[in-house]
Amino acid sequence: MKVGIIGGTGGMGKGFALRWSQNHDVIVGSRDATRASESAVEYTNLAKEAFGEIKGSISGNDNVSVAKESDVLILSIPYENIDSVCSGILPEVNDNCVVVSPIVPMTKTDVGFECVSIKDNKPFSYKLVSNHMKNKSKLVSAFHVISEKKLVNPTLELDYDIFVCGDDKEAVGVVNTLIDEIRGLRSIYLGPIELSYLAEMSTPLLLNAMIQNKIKNPGIKII
Amino acid sequence: MKVGIIGGTGGMGKGFALRWSQNHDVIVGSRDATRASESAVEYTNLAKEAFGEIKGSISGNDNVSVAKESDVLILSIPYENIDSVCSGILPEVNDNCVVVSPIVPMTKTDVGFECVSIKDNKPFSYKLVSNHMKNKSKLVSAFHVISEKKLVNPTLELDYDIFVCGDDKEAVGVVNTLIDEIRGLRSIYLGPIELSYLAEMSTPLLLNAMIQNKIKNPGIKII
Repeated sequence: MKVGIIGGTGGMGKGFALRWSQNHDVIVGSRDATRASESAVEYTNLAKEAFGEIKGSISGNDNVSVAKESDVLILSIPYENIDSVCSGILPEVNDNCVVVSPIVPMTKTDVGFECVSIKDNKPFSYKLVSNHMKNKSKLVSAFHVISEKKLVNPTLELDYDIFVCGDDKEAVGVVNTLIDEIRGLRSIYLGPIELSYLAEMSTPLLLNAMIQNKIKNPGIKII
Repeated sequence: MKVGIIGGTGGMGKGFALRWSQNHDVIVGSRDATRASESAVEYTNLAKEAFGEIKGSISGNDNVSVAKESDVLILSIPYENIDSVCSGILPEVNDNCVVVSPIVPMTKTDVGFECVSIKDNKPFSYKLVSNHMKNKSKLVSAFHVISEKKLVNPTLELDYDIFVCGDDKEAVGVVNTLIDEIRGLRSIYLGPIELSYLAEMSTPLLLNAMIQNKIKNPGIKII
């Protein structure tokens, strides 16, 4: 499977690239194709160090080229950039491309981590992303509560639940496969994409819990 | 400590009464004082069966009388009844009374459990409750994600995190004591009361997770 990662040179993109390169052809995307290719070389070396041989590969390209090629496209970008980035790339994906949004509408204020959709009455991430998609049924919300710090270290085992929302069973299935391939993650399906706000809100909840109670790299689990 | 439970004849009220009667004087509230007293007798017998002797007591009265007497007042009422119930009772509490809201703005629709504050743009519970309080700093949000089914069986051990929001340290401390007294519960402080929406949203998240993934009486834990 070709897994494209928009904003792939960031920490979350790096973590995903390392871990999924064991089974898939990961394409790291950036505005700057050269920077993406350089990151891809670095990640390939790190992945081979961590896992020995990898069955897949890691390459790099500009975001638009990545979008055109991908079977699954991970949007590893900040909430503020959704419109500017997605308007350029989502019209370019093929109709069956599964678009994955881990994007959280969040800001840090004096009271803690807040949800800007509540605080400032802005749209939730899935709505903004969906606006730019032709085949909206292929949007899946996932990976909001993953610890980037742990993800980028491929020898660390994670122990988190990943909340998943999506309308299309097949698309959700594809994302579940990617979740299962990262050891220690468990997929918890919440329902259709319009429930994505519940998953998006879990990140500020988790971060406030972390800071107020001094818990290191926490995750959320349903038990 | 005198712990009043408004709507105390419901399942959640029953569970709290049984468990806290081990250390506190619990006053079960209902619109109908007779019904409250009858429940109190039933709960007292159940508590003695479960724990042998209890150090506290369980009595019953009408909601307004309960509000006047209580050091801590638990609002075990549905979201839809906040205005009608709180307008009658919250002006009656003393200034130091800690008011606890476990109320969730939730509805069940075709897509699952939804938050009416998001879906229908209604206020979160803590805002509606706060409107009726003179000393708003004494409002604490807690107990949104507790399983009523497990709570009412005093021999069952719970294993949940309870998200807590509040502005006043002392009031939060009082609620933490009540949380700690129920074995298996852990208090996770999220921050000031204006972050309460994060706790209120965790209930529809949990219930959708439960139904979609067939998990029995689940709780949420930060791990």
